[in-house]
Amino acid sequence: MWTVDNDALESIAIGAGILGTGGGGNPYLGKLAARRLLRLGKRIEVISLEELPDDWRLVTVGGMGAPTITIEKISRGTETLDAMRALESYVGRRIDAVIPAEIGGGNSIEPMVVAAHAGIPVVDADGMGRAFPTMPMITYFIYGLSCYPCAVCDEKGNKIVYTEGVDAYWLERLSRSAAVQMGGHAGAAVAYMTGADAKRTAIRDTLSWARALGDRVRAAREAKEEPVAAILEETRGLPLLTGKIVDVERRTAEGWVRGLVRIEGTDADAGSSLEISFQNENLIAWRDGEVVATVPDLICIVNREDGEPITTEMLRYGYRVAVVGIPSSPLLRTPEALAVVGPPAFGHDLPFEPIEAAR
Amino acid sequence: MWTVDNDALESIAIGAGILGTGGGGNPYLGKLAARRLLRLGKRIEVISLEELPDDWRLVTVGGMGAPTITIEKISRGTETLDAMRALESYVGRRIDAVIPAEIGGGNSIEPMVVAAHAGIPVVDADGMGRAFPTMPMITYFIYGLSCYPCAVCDEKGNKIVYTEGVDAYWLERLSRSAAVQMGGHAGAAVAYMTGADAKRTAIRDTLSWARALGDRVRAAREAKEEPVAAILEETRGLPLLTGKIVDVERRTAEGWVRGLVRIEGTDADAGSSLEISFQNENLIAWRDGEVVATVPDLICIVNREDGEPITTEMLRYGYRVAVVGIPSSPLLRTPEALAVVGPPAFGHDLPFEPIEAAR
Repeated sequence: MWTVDNDALESIAIGAGILGTGGGGNPYLGKLAARRLLRLGKRIEVISLEELPDDWRLVTVGGMGAPTITIEKISRGTETLDAMRALESYVGRRIDAVIPAEIGGGNSIEPMVVAAHAGIPVVDADGMGRAFPTMPMITYFIYGLSCYPCAVCDEKGNKIVYTEGVDAYWLERLSRSAAVQMGGHAGAAVAYMTGADAKRTAIRDTLSWARALGDRVRAAREAKEEPVAAILEETRGLPLLTGKIVDVERRTAEGWVRGLVRIEGTDADAGSSLEISFQNENLIAWRDGEVVATVPDLICIVNREDGEPITTEMLRYGYRVAVVGIPSSPLLRTPEALAVVGPPAFGHDLPFEPIEAAR
Repeated sequence: MWTVDNDALESIAIGAGILGTGGGGNPYLGKLAARRLLRLGKRIEVISLEELPDDWRLVTVGGMGAPTITIEKISRGTETLDAMRALESYVGRRIDAVIPAEIGGGNSIEPMVVAAHAGIPVVDADGMGRAFPTMPMITYFIYGLSCYPCAVCDEKGNKIVYTEGVDAYWLERLSRSAAVQMGGHAGAAVAYMTGADAKRTAIRDTLSWARALGDRVRAAREAKEEPVAAILEETRGLPLLTGKIVDVERRTAEGWVRGLVRIEGTDADAGSSLEISFQNENLIAWRDGEVVATVPDLICIVNREDGEPITTEMLRYGYRVAVVGIPSSPLLRTPEALAVVGPPAFGHDLPFEPIEAAR
């Protein structure tokens, strides 16, 4: 068990931002919310899967919607807590701990905010080892847990419980259309499970990993060393390109932000260019027309100078960036996982090729 | 208490079709479903508000979506029953009787189908005294009952419970977007109330009225008399025009069917014409450019020869029709009701004028 203080929060926000591969929501707002709770004397406790009792009841909590909207729509701050409370009231039992759905971006921090409010711990694990845009892509569901019941709440007081249904695809479809009606962003509680369920289906120690990654970046900054080199080392990642953003196509529709970013190489990469397609998260990277990284492997765009992650809604012409490819968790590379999170699941007619092999 | 047999069903389908003012769903499919249940030995019992115990728990059940879709999308037949069961399971109590939301069209018959399945009675009353396109327009909500919880189910097994929320407008917005995702039609259970609540907020004896109206139309047909004259007499209605449909504009969007129908007068009405705008239901009638009937009063289009109601999704060029205006229930003409069901609520910048005064 460890506790999240302001220093850990700072590192997690950086690490989760990088591991979010452009999505998961901007961690900055989540960090501010968590910092405020720490100032008010709340505690954020993190427990490992090993420490987690098998019979505890957990739920995954997080924000739902397009990150482009999340940074503009003022949140009430308790939507996700409300969703957990609505789910507790539906199942008639208190939740013992929350577990993140994704380690990426704001949705790595939102569970800490809910946990601090509720006075329960957050589990050091998640269901993606990165961020993904849709609910069926969570390992809890890929490995057989039910996605029902699920609660979705907004800042206006609307509360919906999806009590039963076909599968996580239908839950995604129905809950996302609700989030769109709610103004493009809502809080959700889903994947009601036991501690034993989590041990079987979660990707372990990812909050610790995000924190360690953030620590490395911050240490490199202070030592005036290359933060990108530190990221590559901590993640066993591969450099994909260093350069300047020259074009961003981006549209927000159906509750997602989709688009394409084009980066022209500089320094050692001069003369080369990289294109990355995204749907909330970065999906495929082509270097000079050749595929060099494919989902579910992580494609991370960071500020070249300080290693600060750049989420898809923050991409701008002119930014100097480094793009890093990171091998995804083995839990995402099984045939059953690739059927849900491989390139074809995002409309790309490409096979998944492990990034270690592609370059 | 009376029971619905095949003969009563036949009359109710005609009467409710007329009182549906073009909407409420086509009663034909509902009639077939109810007839099948009668053939299987199920009973449909109707009890009056007077007979209803104050402490009974009721719920309104019905189909939700665009009638144009309902006639094409094959229903499983138990969506609405599923919605009632989901609501029962949420509140932890069996429902004692169902009460229609609207007397118009298919949603006057759907509660009978659910009641027959569940072995409980249906109350001889409704929340509109006609049909309307949206949930806030139900008298139960106009007169202060909560619309939460509400359950919405589809034929695929998706079940949603709206547990809390802002108001009936938000419930309408969220549940309708779910119905659209579910394929344009879903079953709903809403307005969980006591017998005492129903006595205070429902429009009484409307199933009996629909039956009596259907009886009159059928009697006129058999006696080779004018069915339209019988309708006018039974409803204290006013003839608006007799003529031929010459134009229909109709589009299905956002879960509704909206449009305009134009009818050219024949016989005594030769030289005149009538335009009617609709959103699922007929809303405003203009005769030669002058407003002659406004919502919430009923504007009913029937086949001129046999008095058969013509719903908005069945309107076709060339039909010979009679248009009848019927005064709405006093419960729809109060200031609080007109704020919700008057012409401005449908985007028409017109005052409500009682049909008796307008002509």
